[in-house]
Amino acid sequence: MTQLESAKAGIITDEMRIVAEDENIDIEILQQKIASGKVVIPKNIKRNFHPVGIGNGLSTKINANIGTSEDHCNLEEEIKKMEIAEKYGVDSIMDLSTGGRLDFARETIIKKSKVMVGTVPIYGVITKLFSENKKIYDMTSDMLFAEIEKQAEQGVDFFTVHCGVNTRTLPFLESEDRLMGIVSRGGSLTKAWMKMHNAENPLYEEFDRLLEICLKYDITLSLGDGLRPGAQHDASDRAQMAELLVLGELVERSRNAGVQVMVEGPGHIPLDQIEMNVQLQKSICRDAPFYVLGPLTTDIAPGYDHIVGAIGGAIAASKGVDFLCYLTPAEHLCLPNLDDVKNGVIATKIAAHTGDIVKGIKGAKDRDHKISKARRDFDWENIYKYSINPELSRERKESSEANSEEYCTMCGKMCAVRTDTGKNS
Amino acid sequence: MTQLESAKAGIITDEMRIVAEDENIDIEILQQKIASGKVVIPKNIKRNFHPVGIGNGLSTKINANIGTSEDHCNLEEEIKKMEIAEKYGVDSIMDLSTGGRLDFARETIIKKSKVMVGTVPIYGVITKLFSENKKIYDMTSDMLFAEIEKQAEQGVDFFTVHCGVNTRTLPFLESEDRLMGIVSRGGSLTKAWMKMHNAENPLYEEFDRLLEICLKYDITLSLGDGLRPGAQHDASDRAQMAELLVLGELVERSRNAGVQVMVEGPGHIPLDQIEMNVQLQKSICRDAPFYVLGPLTTDIAPGYDHIVGAIGGAIAASKGVDFLCYLTPAEHLCLPNLDDVKNGVIATKIAAHTGDIVKGIKGAKDRDHKISKARRDFDWENIYKYSINPELSRERKESSEANSEEYCTMCGKMCAVRTDTGKNS
Repeated sequence: MTQLESAKAGIITDEMRIVAEDENIDIEILQQKIASGKVVIPKNIKRNFHPVGIGNGLSTKINANIGTSEDHCNLEEEIKKMEIAEKYGVDSIMDLSTGGRLDFARETIIKKSKVMVGTVPIYGVITKLFSENKKIYDMTSDMLFAEIEKQAEQGVDFFTVHCGVNTRTLPFLESEDRLMGIVSRGGSLTKAWMKMHNAENPLYEEFDRLLEICLKYDITLSLGDGLRPGAQHDASDRAQMAELLVLGELVERSRNAGVQVMVEGPGHIPLDQIEMNVQLQKSICRDAPFYVLGPLTTDIAPGYDHIVGAIGGAIAASKGVDFLCYLTPAEHLCLPNLDDVKNGVIATKIAAHTGDIVKGIKGAKDRDHKISKARRDFDWENIYKYSINPELSRERKESSEANSEEYCTMCGKMCAVRTDTGKNS
Repeated sequence: MTQLESAKAGIITDEMRIVAEDENIDIEILQQKIASGKVVIPKNIKRNFHPVGIGNGLSTKINANIGTSEDHCNLEEEIKKMEIAEKYGVDSIMDLSTGGRLDFARETIIKKSKVMVGTVPIYGVITKLFSENKKIYDMTSDMLFAEIEKQAEQGVDFFTVHCGVNTRTLPFLESEDRLMGIVSRGGSLTKAWMKMHNAENPLYEEFDRLLEICLKYDITLSLGDGLRPGAQHDASDRAQMAELLVLGELVERSRNAGVQVMVEGPGHIPLDQIEMNVQLQKSICRDAPFYVLGPLTTDIAPGYDHIVGAIGGAIAASKGVDFLCYLTPAEHLCLPNLDDVKNGVIATKIAAHTGDIVKGIKGAKDRDHKISKARRDFDWENIYKYSINPELSRERKESSEANSEEYCTMCGKMCAVRTDTGKNS
């Protein structure tokens, strides 16, 4: 039985117990949230790791994408990226490899990961075809489902599938005057294949076949937004919204089949459209957990998209988004290196924590209160301890000239806290 | 005559002409905004530089703080910081020096700066007293006004003065159970002096004396928020709001006297209180330009406060804040180095630009559209050109393995834009 089926049947699983304890919430309330689909616990029955819940009432979770590419293919480096992401508190890893031996890479990542692992199965099919000098055209529905079945058996915990790119939604894309068209890899491949074959998207047409596999392994579906905007100009248009409507239907079909499901969201959108996007997704998708990439509130900052993503992600989380995909400084330019991964995870943690303060997540504000109290007391050890990156805080303070407990080089003895606590009298 | 007096008298100054042209807005409308106090052009009559407007309907401006401290005192380095800040597009520099020869430092900075320069005059008085082994107690009202008069003559364009820390507002602070008390240097010094002397704040009591000096040089007052919250816990409390009410009165007194004025704001506040703070300031201070430090939406990220400040600043700007003070990665830990200044300015520019997109500032979105069009066309030269940091974008792309026009190492040949534009068929 999946977590969803168990919850519906009134069964409390070990995974639910762990999540309830970690989140410090009532187990019955959690079970109800899972039964109604507001919370998912992505965990393939083949895997054994500390499970994490995503959704309403729980702390905001974050994902880091790793994976080889054709031009930069070094599995060892990707494993190191995963370890760094885990060190800085990531809740999920997506293996987006498109270079080298994909099956071996996926197997290794799943074996070594301490957190849930997600993939985009179509990447496996297309990478193989390209490596054999074949074309997108040569993909078949059976290839796609064979890949999904294989990855399910390997232990993937959640699949991103672009089922909403279909014959119902593409006409809305065609009537839009987009600057960037499609920027989702899965979305662009799906559309290209559909046009070449003049056929429906297999993942939509045979959605029940997908559900069967997910049911067997308790894999969570992450309904991808293949038509998400890739530029401020393209935000919140008919194509994006048409896809969301289809995803809303698929959420209900998944839940009815006992399959856990979440929904992916934008993307490049202006700051003042974030709240509307979150409200709309929650309404159309009946409170399915919402997983966003960014959002990016400007297009002009390659090299700094972890900051742009933190701006959008913080607002999104505070408005109810449950799961943030990180962006690294390398976004739009190249594959991230180890340092990019670290900076991306930390920026996204800041966004998630900012959201958790607003959401009123139990314990979220406590950490802020503890570091602030330590500041007032010039208790540097506790400042480091409650910092998002304790090593960096310590290193910067201790390597500065004012390496004393009493103040820092910023204000010297004119420190406001010194003055306000009577130490300058 | 000050810019405010000129505007009231129906005179259009050279400064107004330049600002109207830069902002691409109607000169008559600008003149009305200046006459009503919604826009200021901080520029001491002693100085000659390209003037910039701050306020309603204009693009969001950003400030970088530089300056020596007792433990890290190197004027040459501070000048380099100023040059880097200017290179990355800062609109204003505040000299917050508290170490070494302050008068010479200020003179040098004013001489070399291409943008407006602000100071906090009380720092000069207290630094001198501390260097003579004297105490806060030894400050007198005359010392403070002599410092202000001297700096006015040197050419300072705007003064931060903490007039709102007074006998009307401090009782509200005392009845609050704050975690951090006062975190403003000027605010903490003022409160300490008042308590020692059991006296009113000279900058409040002799506000007219301050106005006279500002009038003579057309110095803009920046009414500091000495009681701003320094922790999430302390946000939006009675002390902060009592001070805002007094600042609202002082805005009217300044305007009536013909002195340009803006108001400073928080500080550490949760994300969902930012909009309220902006609305309240705009209402209480009759649309005076609003200048905020952050806001910081969490306390836990020393080392990354430029990111936290970008989150808060982007939201603040999108809700109507006119002027953002940068935060660097060094905030709360040590004096920023050159790299910190660069990263602080860029993060704050991202926040300001995000706000300008929402505000509908003329031309703001155009840059996003241009870089997005360049992305669609694989036109890397234009991607670099419209990037917030062209050198970094170029360096990262060109040093990656996929140094080709056709794609980057992120997605390789499976690039969504390649697929969507038919290059993978």
